[in-house]
Parts: sequence; structure tokens; C-alpha cells
Amino acid sequence: MNPDITRERQNASFDVEKLTYILDGGPEKTKRRRQIEALVFSDPDFNEDDPNFLSRSERYDQAVRKSAQMILKLREYGIADPEEIYHYKSMVKGNQQEPFGLHVVMFIPSLRRLCDPQQAKKWLPLADSFQVLGTYAQTEMGHGTHLRGLETTATYDPATQEFVLNSPTVSSIKWWPGGLGKTSNHAIVLAQLYSLGNCHGLHAFIVPIRDMTTHQPLPGIVVGDIGPKFGFNEVDNGFLKLENVRIPRENMMMKYSKVEPDGTYVKPPSSKLTYGTMVFVRSMIVGESARALSKSCTIAIRYSAVRHQSEIRPGEPEPQILDYQTQQYKLFPLLSMAYAFTFVGQYMTEIYHRISEDINQGDFSQLPELHALSAGLKAFTTWETNSAIEVCRMSCGGHGYSRSSALPDIYVEFTPTCTYEGENTVMMLQTARYLVKSYRQAEKGQQLSGIVSYLNGSQNRRVQPQAVASRRPLVDINDLSSLVEVYQQRAATLVEMAAKSIQQELQRRKSQEDAWNNSAIDLVRASDAHCHYVVVKVFNDKLKGVGDTAIHSVLSTLALLYAMHGITKNSGDFLQAGLVSVPQVLQISVRIKELLSQLRPNAVALVDAFDIHDKKLNSVLGRYDGNVYENMFEWARRSPLNAAEVHESFQKYLKPLRSKL
Amino acid sequence: MNPDITRERQNASFDVEKLTYILDGGPEKTKRRRQIEALVFSDPDFNEDDPNFLSRSERYDQAVRKSAQMILKLREYGIADPEEIYHYKSMVKGNQQEPFGLHVVMFIPSLRRLCDPQQAKKWLPLADSFQVLGTYAQTEMGHGTHLRGLETTATYDPATQEFVLNSPTVSSIKWWPGGLGKTSNHAIVLAQLYSLGNCHGLHAFIVPIRDMTTHQPLPGIVVGDIGPKFGFNEVDNGFLKLENVRIPRENMMMKYSKVEPDGTYVKPPSSKLTYGTMVFVRSMIVGESARALSKSCTIAIRYSAVRHQSEIRPGEPEPQILDYQTQQYKLFPLLSMAYAFTFVGQYMTEIYHRISEDINQGDFSQLPELHALSAGLKAFTTWETNSAIEVCRMSCGGHGYSRSSALPDIYVEFTPTCTYEGENTVMMLQTARYLVKSYRQAEKGQQLSGIVSYLNGSQNRRVQPQAVASRRPLVDINDLSSLVEVYQQRAATLVEMAAKSIQQELQRRKSQEDAWNNSAIDLVRASDAHCHYVVVKVFNDKLKGVGDTAIHSVLSTLALLYAMHGITKNSGDFLQAGLVSVPQVLQISVRIKELLSQLRPNAVALVDAFDIHDKKLNSVLGRYDGNVYENMFEWARRSPLNAAEVHESFQKYLKPLRSKL
Repeated sequence: MNPDITRERQNASFDVEKLTYILDGGPEKTKRRRQIEALVFSDPDFNEDDPNFLSRSERYDQAVRKSAQMILKLREYGIADPEEIYHYKSMVKGNQQEPFGLHVVMFIPSLRRLCDPQQAKKWLPLADSFQVLGTYAQTEMGHGTHLRGLETTATYDPATQEFVLNSPTVSSIKWWPGGLGKTSNHAIVLAQLYSLGNCHGLHAFIVPIRDMTTHQPLPGIVVGDIGPKFGFNEVDNGFLKLENVRIPRENMMMKYSKVEPDGTYVKPPSSKLTYGTMVFVRSMIVGESARALSKSCTIAIRYSAVRHQSEIRPGEPEPQILDYQTQQYKLFPLLSMAYAFTFVGQYMTEIYHRISEDINQGDFSQLPELHALSAGLKAFTTWETNSAIEVCRMSCGGHGYSRSSALPDIYVEFTPTCTYEGENTVMMLQTARYLVKSYRQAEKGQQLSGIVSYLNGSQNRRVQPQAVASRRPLVDINDLSSLVEVYQQRAATLVEMAAKSIQQELQRRKSQEDAWNNSAIDLVRASDAHCHYVVVKVFNDKLKGVGDTAIHSVLSTLALLYAMHGITKNSGDFLQAGLVSVPQVLQISVRIKELLSQLRPNAVALVDAFDIHDKKLNSVLGRYDGNVYENMFEWARRSPLNAAEVHESFQKYLKPLRSKL
Repeated sequence: MNPDITRERQNASFDVEKLTYILDGGPEKTKRRRQIEALVFSDPDFNEDDPNFLSRSERYDQAVRKSAQMILKLREYGIADPEEIYHYKSMVKGNQQEPFGLHVVMFIPSLRRLCDPQQAKKWLPLADSFQVLGTYAQTEMGHGTHLRGLETTATYDPATQEFVLNSPTVSSIKWWPGGLGKTSNHAIVLAQLYSLGNCHGLHAFIVPIRDMTTHQPLPGIVVGDIGPKFGFNEVDNGFLKLENVRIPRENMMMKYSKVEPDGTYVKPPSSKLTYGTMVFVRSMIVGESARALSKSCTIAIRYSAVRHQSEIRPGEPEPQILDYQTQQYKLFPLLSMAYAFTFVGQYMTEIYHRISEDINQGDFSQLPELHALSAGLKAFTTWETNSAIEVCRMSCGGHGYSRSSALPDIYVEFTPTCTYEGENTVMMLQTARYLVKSYRQAEKGQQLSGIVSYLNGSQNRRVQPQAVASRRPLVDINDLSSLVEVYQQRAATLVEMAAKSIQQELQRRKSQEDAWNNSAIDLVRASDAHCHYVVVKVFNDKLKGVGDTAIHSVLSTLALLYAMHGITKNSGDFLQAGLVSVPQVLQISVRIKELLSQLRPNAVALVDAFDIHDKKLNSVLGRYDGNVYENMFEWARRSPLNAAEVHESFQKYLKPLRSKL
């Protein structure tokens, strides 16, 4: 154990184990999580080469092997609880992804959701036994978010009772679905349905794409991998070009709408059920943000405790880089963010389960709020985390750039969350739509409830600008509840400004749609402020439930830092709205420095509490024992470029070069 | 040619070719640059596979081949002008790096700088003929910025007249030097010199590391590649462990200091000459920022003109995504930044050459200013560009994440500039040291000249806070010169605040060093504001020399956008200092929207003017002809994972899995 890091742990003011229980949701959960982790990490079947030492094809190969193993093990151990499966998988994956992901997360659930009983009876056993390996093929090369724009066609032929599927243009080639390139032998294909000369819009079809015995692509199918990406090297995101591919009528997924043998189209009863899956996945991504950020902070803070560099006082030994104020200012606000997002992730899960139950009992009233919340928080937390991971990486100096640090892997595997499951700007605008609608309802005197209830008061504020000045002395910058209030009022102001911008555009005789587009900057800003408010509020609410005094104290410091740092970073907003004064902004800057000093002795303990197993972290810089340098040397020597002392290029190019000069 | 992009070009209000001349520094330079590019791109010897399709070892191999070719070609064509060599190299490299880089950029110049005449006579011909391939080994695993902390030792043995070199600890292993792992057979090693029992500090030694015939590592040398990184896959950044390695006394580089045969150490005459190289490299990096950002903007803006998505008005065709206000708000400020940084890069080059001439004539008076400027602007432009590349990538939706977009490559090759040649936070603090020193000089009544002359007035402002209020009406937010003034005053305010923070810490009886560290956040912020001011000022100055009315008009729009966007992003600073009023901040937000609309028709033409060859850009999304989708499909099909229709993992893991379930 590195002596620096041992000393750090001795200086902590709280019981790390107890904080881990809070983060896991109780000691029982911590215990079970560790049991599951031990199952994976003690299992020689999951031994592997560092993926960074392998070619793309070898990485894919290793990942398929591990995924196949995992399926067998989960059945062997009888692990069936979704949360436990999630932990098990997460340990198997490490910092990488798995090629079967969509079979389990999208293909099987879609079969359940969209098959009629007869279809379900046929397809589910095939999928559960991995005879059929499937994916969900929605996006096309030229079409993402906007479903109505998809171009793939499925035309019914009553003569043979078949659908004929086509990719009529290059831009209509299915593009991106995970596992489509090499792994799957079936795909649920979203296509525009044509029957008897009419287009009936988008429907889902089960399309066999590879022979179930030979795995060769079937006639009319052009399928393959879309090529190397920033990350996701383990996943064969694929393309699929359909050339007059015929499938039986029964392969249209017929739970809601049908095509009769004669080609008659039967409309679905109106349904909003797809809504639920999206909301669920986005809620999960909020938690993913917290985990990616926790990993990154663990690495950067442990390394900063071990690394010595330069000098603060001449003649003294080089200090730990964690003693530099600039290093603390880079990392501790991100640490506070990691805690904030962890609690917001828990909050999203709770609220999702609560509202899901309502929905199951036929009460859809909370769905719009849940939808707006999950969309906005997905965007807010992924954008913040995306930048934060890179700050963590760069705070490790050159070594952060080495793949041995794991930070490059964490970044490239995380950054797609800003785009998939709803592109972030689009998400922010969806949340804004809900906020502006709520604002207008309040304007009309309707009493809002739930998270947007703060918009009830906006109208009064607007007509009394002097009220702003009179509110000012009420803000106690050292009181977190007061800061929550301030964030709330900032959100209210920005929602109002966005709504007014639309109003002004309309008064200039712009159409509703152009008015919306011309106010989009303000709308995104309003959503951002709303989400920021929710995060600060959730952190504050969480504190109320923490009984342990020492833990309450350190979490309060983190929460204050999170809130204050957000104010300094956005001080223009707060000053403009008259929510804080110029002297208060200066006081906050001073207080932030004090909070950094207060957190310094607890920094390592606070990342230890995330309790991320060394094998999951897979980072030489972030090791629990702090023995960075020996292990970095050992890792480098295993690198494939060192397999031979002399690289072949010496004989091929370097030696001949001399003689030619 | 894609019809959308053709239409965009028809709508431009200015002559693209003329703007290219301005960016290149004149039509002659443009012509010559294009000749050089044509030499590379028409040369079949530089044909290559997409590096993203190759393994690390294959990438290194291909890069060595290209570098060796390049050396022969440069001699063949007689290209010797440094700027022309730079262009030629830059085209050969594409978006990647080259393994010989340090031989030319560091090893040979160091030989020139540090060898005495006899040594130069021996080593330079060997290096010029690539018999000796060298690198510069300074950083160690545990030591970067802080040179005094380096641990490698060179102990003189008078008995044999040799130096004995050692890596006494794991952390002392040389780490990171480019070309050290596999390519070089010599290294200039920085080590603590010991002679006759005394340590004389850091000195440079020429150390043979591999046999010049067999290329095998020499006795006592443990050398290799440090393993995979985020980018720089073409470069064998290496490690070097020295175990009692003996080199002749003559291999100490003896231009300035010496060890006599009997071990007597001869001190160097005091010298600040190394200063110059660092300043030069940092100045160059400012230009690299501009180029990386120009490439990224070219890709994102062309793609945004070709990509259609969603709907603004229901029922109408999907609009180009460049018509969304949010997309314009993401990209156009970055486009304005690309222009700003291009002009700052030109400015740094000019100022470097001017001051270098002064230095050659013995006038060192401008060196501190140049040093502060190059350090700060290096940090400012690389940090801004680093984030900006990722914004460009994410603005391309999912396809930005594909390696075919080139944006992942541009990012991973660029991001090390934030760390190497002076870690950015350290750079900002060096600039701050100069600013605070200048501020104190002005405080004492000294009249400052040069770029910091604006600090002359600070003292008067400080004692007359009401002066702030009286200045306010002078700011005309639509006048760029007025905005330059506002940026200047913001910088002055923040330098003053940082200086005061140090003062307050000293009054609390902190030592100078602790006072500095406890004010580091404010110091970085002051440097940042100073650099931001310089950028806005340089952009404004550049406009004065632009004669063409149409170009002057569009560049003025860009400059205003750059300045205004910076104010909204940092509105807290400007409001706090009373430099703009709340209504003005709101006006600026409205004006920014107008500027985005004004720039919209010129956006594609403005990136065309960067004139980046398709083969240099190497981006499917950023192609000049806009034919994105066909080429993306073609690229994907060439991807190695598609070499076989059925991947071997099917037989190995997927088929067996079925039977086991």
C-alpha cells in the first residue's frame, strides 16, 4: 500500500463503509453487490487480455466469448433479479460494452410488447434459447430522431401473402443497431407499411437476416459492420440493406395493428405504451452518468494523492498534486457532482417505479412530468459528465492520456449517451415544451403541482419587478435550502424569458413553429436551469434523510460546493435576475475556497465510498493501493508492440533509408 | 456534387478564393501551398490504408514507411524552407502523427544547441544521414513539469573517463519521449550530474540505446513502447530504464558546461537560451489550435448543410439541420473562434519573429512579454479548441462518433496539446505571474508598455468606484472597438482581484508561496480574461487591414459574434465589474440571434475558405462534394470486420451456446 494513500485514509472524518451503504441503498444491498462482484472476479472463465492490446476483431471475439459465458453463468447461479443481473453484467463488461446487449434489452422486450399471443409463442422460446439472436433496427443512415422520416418500405403482396422489404435509397440503409453487423440472425425492422396502394406508416417486422445454421446472410440481405468508432469496439453496430426481401405475413408484429390475408389494414387502438420504455432507458442513463463520473473521480483523486509534482514552498519536497488549489478546484466540484448525480439517479429510479405503478393502474396523469424530467435530466447529466470525464483525464497530466489510466475508455464508452436514446438538444427542447406549457397554464390561473409548481408564482414576479430587490436580503448563501430557492427562481426567470421570446416572435407575425425555432436557444437554457434546480433540490432533500452526523457533515459540504460552484459558473444568470448581489458572488468565491480546504482531508475517503472494485475500474492510476508506477511499467511491458525487441519496420524501412541518403 | 451544398455556395456573399488568400498570407502563399499538397496527394508512394482499419503495429509500420519516403522526397524535390517542409509533412501525416517527429524537431536542434564544435562535427552528420536516429528523453514516469525533480543520475568515473547512467527508482524511468520505444538508436538523456561526490544538477548526455547495425537494445538498456494511448498510435512513445550504462566522457553535451577528464566540473556561463525553443513551440501550438478547429468546423458545417432531419414546419420536407437555431448556436461561435485563432496564430508568428530578431541583436527586453503571451495563449486556445472539437463532433449526431467522420481522430491527436509543452494550468499561472508583476509595477507608478499597458489605469479605477458607473454609457455593444475596451477592462479588474487576493493572504501572515497557491483560482481566471482580451483585440486589429468590402463585412460579423458570445458566456464577470448593464446583456442575446441568421448563408463558404484538401480532412462527413451517404457505405464495407461474412466467433461461441441451454 502506498504510504500517501494510507495517510489520506487515516485522515478521513467519517466511516467510509457507512457512506457506501447510503450509496447502495442499505447494507444488505452492498453485501449482495459484493457477492455478485466476487462471483465474476474469482471466475477464471472471465480472465481476459486488456482489450486495448487487441485488434478490433479480437476484441469482438473476446466479448462474444464473455457474453456467451455470462448467459450460462447467470442461469447456473439462478440470478434473475434485474438489478442483480445488471451488477453481474456490469462487472463482466468492465469499461467495455457487450455485443448481445440489444438482444436482451431491445429484441426480447419488443417481442413481448409487439407480438400477438400466437407470435409470442413462436418467437420467445427461440429468442430465450438464443436460436434466434436479434436486434432492433430502427435508425437509418439518413434518419435518426425523426421516425416519420424513415424510408425503408414493407409492401404487402396478397398473391403470396408476403411482405416485400426494400431499402429504396442509400440513406434508407439501416445503420447503427448494435449486434446487427455480425452477431444477429434476426432483426426487428421498422418500415413504412404499404398495402393495396396505401401507406399506413411505420410498423415493425421480424426479418430473418442470416441462415440459422450457417449464419450466412440470406438472399437479398446486405449486412455488415459499420466500421470502427470512437469506442464501442466490442459491439458490431451494423448496416442492413434490404433488396426485395420476402417475409411471411405472420412476421409483421400484430399485437396492435394487422394486415389481413387480403391486404386489408386494421388500425391499432390508440396507444402510448412505447413511451414507457424510452422513459425507463433515459432514467437509467442518469444513473450511468453518476457511475461514469464516480469512476473518473476515483481515478483522478487517488492519483492526485499519490502523484508529487513541482513545489509550493521552495526547498520542501514536491507536494501531492491534490494540495494545489487549482487541482482541488478542478476535481472537488466534480466529486460533488458525482454525489449529486448518484442521488438524482436514485430519485429517477424511485419516481419511475412510482409512476409506473400509477400507469399500471390506468393513471397516466404523471407521465408528461416523468417524460419531461427523464429527457431533461438525461441531457443535463450526460453533458455535464461528458465534460467532467475529460477534466478528470487532463487533471492526471500525460498519464491520463495513456490507455492504462482507463479514462480514455471511460470517455469513449460514455460519450454516446449524449446522442443515443434521444439527442441531448432535442431532449432539452422536449423538456422546455413541458415547461412552457406549464408556464402558460399557470399564467391562465391553473394551479400547477409537482416539480414545476414553482412556476405558479412567476406571474406575480413579472408584474412587480421591485419584488426582486426586496427578495434579495432573504438569500442566505450559506444555507443550502436558500440556495435551492435561488436555483428555483433562476429557473422560473429563464422559463419566463423563453416563453416571452416565443410571444415576441408571434407578435412579429411568425408562425408558431418559426417562433419556437427562433427561441430555441432560450428554451434550452431554461431547461438547463430547470434541471440544475432539480439536482440541487434532490441533493438537499437527500441530506435530510442522513442520520450519521459525520456523514451528514461531509455530504453537506459537498452539496454546498455543488450549489455554489454552479452559481459562480452561471453568475450572469443569477445577477441578471437580481437573485444574488455582486458582493454575494464575491463571498461565494471565497466560501468555495474554504469548502475546498474542508474537503481536502476527506477526498480519498469520499471516492473510496463509491466502492468500485479495482477489476471494474481497470485503471493503473486509480488503483486502491496507490501503487501506480510499478504497475504502469508492468502494463507497458505487456503491450504488443514490445513483443519483439526490434520491430520489422527497422529492416524494411529504416535500414534502407540510410543507404539511399 | 450534392445539390444542397451547391446551393449553399451559390448563396455566399463574398469571394471565397480571396478570403483564402487572407488566411494564407497572400495569393502566392496559397499557390505554393497547393503545389506542395498536389505533390503529396498525386504521389502513389503515399497511398495508404485508413489507419483506423489497422492494428497498432500496422499503423506504426505504415507511418515509418511514410516518414522514410517523406525524407527521400523532400531531398529529391529540394524542399528546404521550414514553412514548406511544414506543409509537406502536414499533408503526409493527414490527421495522424509521425514517429520520426522528435528526431527532426528536438534531437537535431538540441545537438546544434548543446554540442561543442567537436561534438557537433561528430554527431550532426550521423543524425542528418539517419545513421543516428535520436529522441529527447527528459520526462520520467514520476516527473513532468518540474525539472529539478528528475531522478536519473549520471555519475562520472574518472578511472575510465566515463559517465555511469542509472535509473535509481521506478519513478525515474524515462517515460513518454516520442520515437524512444522502437525507432531511435540514440537519446539525449537529461540526468543529474554527479562528479567527485557533488551533484551539479541537470545536464544532457548523448546515450546510445540500440546497436546501430542490429537495432538490438544495448547492455544495461531496458527500452520499449509505453503502450496504447488515446491517440498517437503512430508514435512509439517510449520508456528507458538505465542500469549502469557507461558512456564516454565526450558524450556529455559540453557547449555550456564541462566535466574535465579528472572530474572537475566547469560551470556554464549563465544562459537563458532554452527559453526560446519553448516559446517557439508554444507559439506554433496556437496555430495548431486554429487548424484543428478549422478542420472540425469544416466537417460539422458541411455535414449540417447536407443532413436533413425532423421538421420545423409540419408537412414540409425535413430541413437542413443548419437551419435549426440550436445548431447555428453550437457551430457559428466556433466558426468565429476558428477565424479568431487563425489570426492569433499569425500574430504569434509575427511577434515571435520580431522579438527573435531583437534577441539576436542582444535585446532581451521583450522576452518576458513574449513568454507570458505564448504560455497563456497556448493554454487558452488549446482548452477552447479541445472542447470545441467535441461540440463539433456531437453536433453531427451519431455519425460524428464514427471514425469515418475523422472527428474522433482530430480530437485524440489534438487533446495532448493541453498537456505537453507546458501543462495548461501551469501555463496560465506563468502568465498570471507576469500580469501580477506588471500590475504591481504600475501600482508603484511605473509606466507599462506593450500588451499589458492597460494595467496602467487600474489604480485610478480602484480608488474611484463611481468611475465604473460613469463609464457604462460609453459602451456601444454594436461597436467592436468598444467591446475590445470592455474585454480589456474585464481583464484589468480580474488581474486586480487576483493581486488583491494575494495581498489579503499575506496580511493573514501566509508565506508568499502559500498566498500564491491560495489565490491560484483567481490567477488562472485573470490569465484567461487577459488572453480572451488579446484574442478579441487581434481579431479587431486584423479587420482594419481587410480591404475587400464583402469580406470585411462577413469577417466583422464573425468578430462581433466572437466578442458577444464571450460576453454572454461570461456575463457574470462583465456584470460584476459594472462593464455592461443587465439590459445590455439582454440586447446582446438578441443581437447574437441576428448574427447567426446573418451568417447562415455564408457558413459553408466560410469553411470552404479554409481550403482544407479532402485528402487532408479524410472525413466522409466533411467532403467538399457533400456526397456523404454513398461514401459512408463504401467506407464501412471496407472495414476489416467485414472481410469474412461469418465471424469465427459464431462457430466458436454462438453455436455451442445454443446446445448448452
